[in-house]
Amino acid sequence: MNPSPPPPFLIEKIARAALEEDINWRDLTSSILEDVEAVGVISSKEEGVLCGIQVARAVFKILQDDCQFKPFLEDGDPLAKGSFIAEIRGKAKTLLSGERVALNFLQHLSGIATLTRRFVEKIRGTKARILATRKTIPLLRALEKYAVEVGGGYPHRFALYDGILIKNNHIALIGGIKEAVRRAKEMFPYQKIEIEARNLEELKEAIDAGADIILLDNMSVEELKEAVRIAQGKVMLEASGGVSLDNVTEIAETGVDFISIGALTHSAKAIDIHMEVRRL
Amino acid sequence: MNPSPPPPFLIEKIARAALEEDINWRDLTSSILEDVEAVGVISSKEEGVLCGIQVARAVFKILQDDCQFKPFLEDGDPLAKGSFIAEIRGKAKTLLSGERVALNFLQHLSGIATLTRRFVEKIRGTKARILATRKTIPLLRALEKYAVEVGGGYPHRFALYDGILIKNNHIALIGGIKEAVRRAKEMFPYQKIEIEARNLEELKEAIDAGADIILLDNMSVEELKEAVRIAQGKVMLEASGGVSLDNVTEIAETGVDFISIGALTHSAKAIDIHMEVRRL
Amino acid sequence: MNPSPPPPFLIEKIARAALEEDINWRDLTSSILEDVEAVGVISSKEEGVLCGIQVARAVFKILQDDCQFKPFLEDGDPLAKGSFIAEIRGKAKTLLSGERVALNFLQHLSGIATLTRRFVEKIRGTKARILATRKTIPLLRALEKYAVEVGGGYPHRFALYDGILIKNNHIALIGGIKEAVRRAKEMFPYQKIEIEARNLEELKEAIDAGADIILLDNMSVEELKEAVRIAQGKVMLEASGGVSLDNVTEIAETGVDFISIGALTHSAKAIDIHMEVRRL
Amino acid sequence: MNPSPPPPFLIEKIARAALEEDINWRDLTSSILEDVEAVGVISSKEEGVLCGIQVARAVFKILQDDCQFKPFLEDGDPLAKGSFIAEIRGKAKTLLSGERVALNFLQHLSGIATLTRRFVEKIRGTKARILATRKTIPLLRALEKYAVEVGGGYPHRFALYDGILIKNNHIALIGGIKEAVRRAKEMFPYQKIEIEARNLEELKEAIDAGADIILLDNMSVEELKEAVRIAQGKVMLEASGGVSLDNVTEIAETGVDFISIGALTHSAKAIDIHMEVRRL
Amino acid sequence: MNPSPPPPFLIEKIARAALEEDINWRDLTSSILEDVEAVGVISSKEEGVLCGIQVARAVFKILQDDCQFKPFLEDGDPLAKGSFIAEIRGKAKTLLSGERVALNFLQHLSGIATLTRRFVEKIRGTKARILATRKTIPLLRALEKYAVEVGGGYPHRFALYDGILIKNNHIALIGGIKEAVRRAKEMFPYQKIEIEARNLEELKEAIDAGADIILLDNMSVEELKEAVRIAQGKVMLEASGGVSLDNVTEIAETGVDFISIGALTHSAKAIDIHMEVRRL
Amino acid sequence: MNPSPPPPFLIEKIARAALEEDINWRDLTSSILEDVEAVGVISSKEEGVLCGIQVARAVFKILQDDCQFKPFLEDGDPLAKGSFIAEIRGKAKTLLSGERVALNFLQHLSGIATLTRRFVEKIRGTKARILATRKTIPLLRALEKYAVEVGGGYPHRFALYDGILIKNNHIALIGGIKEAVRRAKEMFPYQKIEIEARNLEELKEAIDAGADIILLDNMSVEELKEAVRIAQGKVMLEASGGVSLDNVTEIAETGVDFISIGALTHSAKAIDIHMEVRRL
Repeated sequence: MNPSPPPPFLIEKIARAALEEDINWRDLTSSILEDVEAVGVISSKEEGVLCGIQVARAVFKILQDDCQFKPFLEDGDPLAKGSFIAEIRGKAKTLLSGERVALNFLQHLSGIATLTRRFVEKIRGTKARILATRKTIPLLRALEKYAVEVGGGYPHRFALYDGILIKNNHIALIGGIKEAVRRAKEMFPYQKIEIEARNLEELKEAIDAGADIILLDNMSVEELKEAVRIAQGKVMLEASGGVSLDNVTEIAETGVDFISIGALTHSAKAIDIHMEVRRL
Repeated sequence: MNPSPPPPFLIEKIARAALEEDINWRDLTSSILEDVEAVGVISSKEEGVLCGIQVARAVFKILQDDCQFKPFLEDGDPLAKGSFIAEIRGKAKTLLSGERVALNFLQHLSGIATLTRRFVEKIRGTKARILATRKTIPLLRALEKYAVEVGGGYPHRFALYDGILIKNNHIALIGGIKEAVRRAKEMFPYQKIEIEARNLEELKEAIDAGADIILLDNMSVEELKEAVRIAQGKVMLEASGGVSLDNVTEIAETGVDFISIGALTHSAKAIDIHMEVRRL
Repeated sequence: MNPSPPPPFLIEKIARAALEEDINWRDLTSSILEDVEAVGVISSKEEGVLCGIQVARAVFKILQDDCQFKPFLEDGDPLAKGSFIAEIRGKAKTLLSGERVALNFLQHLSGIATLTRRFVEKIRGTKARILATRKTIPLLRALEKYAVEVGGGYPHRFALYDGILIKNNHIALIGGIKEAVRRAKEMFPYQKIEIEARNLEELKEAIDAGADIILLDNMSVEELKEAVRIAQGKVMLEASGGVSLDNVTEIAETGVDFISIGALTHSAKAIDIHMEVRRL
Repeated sequence: MNPSPPPPFLIEKIARAALEEDINWRDLTSSILEDVEAVGVISSKEEGVLCGIQVARAVFKILQDDCQFKPFLEDGDPLAKGSFIAEIRGKAKTLLSGERVALNFLQHLSGIATLTRRFVEKIRGTKARILATRKTIPLLRALEKYAVEVGGGYPHRFALYDGILIKNNHIALIGGIKEAVRRAKEMFPYQKIEIEARNLEELKEAIDAGADIILLDNMSVEELKEAVRIAQGKVMLEASGGVSLDNVTEIAETGVDFISIGALTHSAKAIDIHMEVRRL
Repeated sequence: MNPSPPPPFLIEKIARAALEEDINWRDLTSSILEDVEAVGVISSKEEGVLCGIQVARAVFKILQDDCQFKPFLEDGDPLAKGSFIAEIRGKAKTLLSGERVALNFLQHLSGIATLTRRFVEKIRGTKARILATRKTIPLLRALEKYAVEVGGGYPHRFALYDGILIKNNHIALIGGIKEAVRRAKEMFPYQKIEIEARNLEELKEAIDAGADIILLDNMSVEELKEAVRIAQGKVMLEASGGVSLDNVTEIAETGVDFISIGALTHSAKAIDIHMEVRRL
Repeated sequence: MNPSPPPPFLIEKIARAALEEDINWRDLTSSILEDVEAVGVISSKEEGVLCGIQVARAVFKILQDDCQFKPFLEDGDPLAKGSFIAEIRGKAKTLLSGERVALNFLQHLSGIATLTRRFVEKIRGTKARILATRKTIPLLRALEKYAVEVGGGYPHRFALYDGILIKNNHIALIGGIKEAVRRAKEMFPYQKIEIEARNLEELKEAIDAGADIILLDNMSVEELKEAVRIAQGKVMLEASGGVSLDNVTEIAETGVDFISIGALTHSAKAIDIHMEVRRL
């Protein structure tokens, strides 16, 4: 099944905020244009995975509700150098005023989807899943988590309010893994409890405490293998820290359930996408 | 002079929005903590240039207005592996609930400042200036442009409403460089007019038309040199397109005034910054 | 551990919106007051459980940041007829302009906490937990879920974005319990999957499909007992529908894990709380 | 004449806020549905008076602007057990994502309209009118006051900014009824002045002072009768405090003009309304 | 008694919006200043009545919460050429970034208060009161109505939601004055009903219908005198239309209760107020 | 070319805010109308220049999206006494609830456009241009600057973020014109630098410092002539202060490039525009 984009009211809200940021009261340069009809074609200048088509559509519709936005591709489709992504017909001013905002979304989100898919392809055949983290660009998390899904990854918990992840800082303050898990299970019986383990001792302690998922922080491939052996499928394991395209296959082959990668959202390179406009 | 951060009301608004995104009604995991006082130390795990200290401060102050935020470094200061950035004292819940949001800002903005400084260092000794573009992450432009300044670059026009930049798409619709510049000068006599030129012919045309700044799009180093010769200082020249750390020195040495680089804001790698928390 | 109220930025936002609703540009009647200092005492006119003290505080602080708000009780404390709840010192206009808004929050939230505690007391000694639902008053869910916690219940999933609950409508559209659970487990491996069962056949099907929690909709006490027997502790069971103070003990004694009650939030009677003001 | 609902921009704003509260970035459970067309039927499970149909419509339109919302009943229509209220056709995800929010509004507002109508029916044949108060659920006052009108009551002043009601707390601070009324008449000559009286002496004082409406707080039926005799139609009288379905008829028969009841809005039980969805 | 300014949360909201309008992400020119302490003195360049001191204070406090704002005058105080209004001490950037926004509020609101006071002085000794209308500058009504009060006038109804004023357009649609008043009295028994009359016949009809206040639209002084004779104090009369400083005395002397003047808010000339800044 | 109005999302946002200000939850008076179709005709009662037609349209569309708004004139068209401006067909309530808000925008903006055009006509034949300033009504700057353009003027810099204007206060703090210009040119090489000069000495200093535009503050016509002679076309000159319809021609004839006038936006008299409504 295809991942669902955020609901339309959220996409519209974000697109509107981005237009306010870039246009505010006036696109000065477009003021010099006459009021002619034009067509704009968005295309890719490099390979990748498309993401953000609904946001791009919203951008132009907010500027001119009767403009025509015709997508040639859908989110998740592969991009080749030169792929046509969408065509927009409307007033010349609409196209030029919306161009940069629409492209900024497409470039950023496609960048995330593309990087995610590279990781996903590297672990094909293993049971591991690629997870996003909360290391997202502030204010864009909904779209970025969606871009990870479009690339074939999983969003993991969205925020502090929808999942329990007990980290070292929590454990240190509470005084131990056992007590931390006990409290979390008591307070949130209807949720899976995830906890961080820095070594195999802590892993065992966490399993004994009754955690559902264990975050293995910065472990070596050898340690991960041993962790999988210890866990025996009784808990789910998430490898985290220092994951790259070079070592992700090896990590996945250890048998862990999840591999979480902050770089998917905080350091993905934008895909080069541009738009050509001509008079109709 | 040091660049000024965005005004406090804007920083607070952005920090608040990011906290709403991440916490909304509850930080579930921190609910298991008792109400103890703690101290958190933010430090860097890699080299770079710090940016975002005011935003980090705002994040913790919004969560607890009487917490103490003590910065050890200022925006623009170099980061070494292990550099202490700031210390926060307050309720354990405050520290843990604000950690990720604060770090997300610091990591992203320091990433931009760091990349910018690398470019700036490469052109030291030339008269060229590094410029940001409008290829920013939607909703974060104010902070990102500021991060470019912190790194030693210049923000260039902020948005469509504060500068004239006539691009190929505009020229094509209007029917020529001469007419485009004429209109812009007529409508915006108190602003400098910048226009794009794809080749040396267009450069000459733009100079004759009376443009103030000319964007040289994707020209080779040889072409740039020739452009500088043609311009004779009568207009300012901005090189753009395909700029990397490898070729920026060469480009700067052609004698152009500006080098604009989209990657500063859309593709900078985050700097790894983290926070340790312990009971007081 | 005491439940944590929503974060201060959310409480302030809600209190501010309520003040805008009630005062907007002017409290006409208070315009006739001179500018004198006064003291207001908030007290209860009936028995119950207090909830909302942070919101009441925020209301008066927004109107006058240097007014003094001194609580005599905390959220969760029992209220007797005549219990003093808080004292506020400030300008007479502050007290009278904020009175109704502060009381509306206190009355509504204390009503929910009080009703919840009545249910909780009825099931003391069983392992069952009282859960809130999403049947909340629109726009007040964060505070209402918190009020349920203050009364001794559990918030359950907050919204559509933080928990999986597959209802009959979903099952009918997908074509069966098995397929519905399969899809949910595939998409959300790090979350517990809850699904509705209308009878014991469906319960068995849901257990076989691998659900984590099963919502038993409108079952009789006899059916619930049988359900507990069938489940054998392999899944968690949530009884729902038609729960009242009269039958909740009996339901809890069947051995179910959770009892969810929409009336906690949509039909709790307000607690009568009022405020007296006099000149200082 | 039928009461008018709040203007469409306000209904949309409230519906949008409620959807943001419940969905935010994703309806997780509906993610498992395929993209099929479906029909949802909203019906009542108990007797009452319908209110909220415009809000329910707005909820689904915000999620999918081309969905079809067909109401079978209008606000103010009686509900029987099983009454069909409305039918919605659209994407299955639209129906399931909007269901709870739409029902929460319908249940709450119909609860208020229903309770109001019960009071209104009890006083049929008298000249008294049932009034709402400002004891509303924070943030929902516009809809709740409207629901009271739908039930046959009157909204009374909406907020602190649109009516003068001098309460005991004001009188105490000013030093007397006479001076309080004098000031109010001086400042607000184009508005009716209402003032509270705790006993018949104060009533006489208020009449002499020139008040237009007098709030009789918590008076016995005997006192109310005497008050009506004293007032001789020169002022309007509002009975308030301790009004129930049991005593409202008796109170109305004393001849008072208004009976105000906080419970209409702060303690009305929700009407049980639900929705069935099936594939088209 | 002095008129009360709008509540602090509204003043802050408006001041913040105005700063966002003028500064947004950066005050470019102030960027060239060093970080020095300075003092600014606000003074008047012409005669008038001061209004807006709370808003000016809010502007500077939002920019720098620890700046010192010391008012020399209060709202309502007379301004002479050269009067010192307030002194602000803080960072030079704070003073220069806030200057224009603060002055814009002061100039506009003092302009309204000044014009109002001129009208008020012209009718001294009569029983008439000067009223504002709803002909205000969009988004600034709360402050403008307050400025009218500061000048000695009365705000009249604030908006469509807090007063009944049946105009010709309403009467034409309903089919007559009598029916219009009947409906309004039925729906809004606790409010005074005002209705427009274009001539003395309509005035009589409106009195018979039971209106409380009658708006006499564009009547000559002779007609107004006759209207006062007809009304005999049974209703209040509001003269409206074509009122100027030249004819207002004559109008007031006819004995009408109110004179409403749109120009107070839509056409008042700004008072020239400026600010000098120097290094401390 | 015609000036472009602000983008539709901004117009809608402002219109919506104005409707919230005036209607909020209910237009009380229109509640007494039946639900009939009507037509409203907006016309002018005096001469002027029309501005605001898009905002008026937005107002009625927000209230009823299928109402018909048919403009007879466009922004910039001359208004005679009696000119028909637009016709709206829709529900009677829509027309009456939107009337005042729509007229307030039209009256205010047409007032600005009309005053601007008067100034523009006075300088016809000279090379001078009429400029708006930042002395605008808070929150309405985008519309007001546009109204100036509609009248034939130029908006000048919009706000603190889109243009450099170094005023006396800045110069005093920095210590001199030369240093101030140097800093500004260094920080904002891609923008024109404007600086204030109070006398001819300062003008020369500013020219030498390399400023692009010089604001001549409150100079006499003789001084302005001398300034033009000194400048010799090397810089642009802006005359400011004390400009009126009486002296603007003389000022323009000195040869200055710009004449900026605060009164255009802070003190323009509203144009009298009204609306008649009748049943269809």
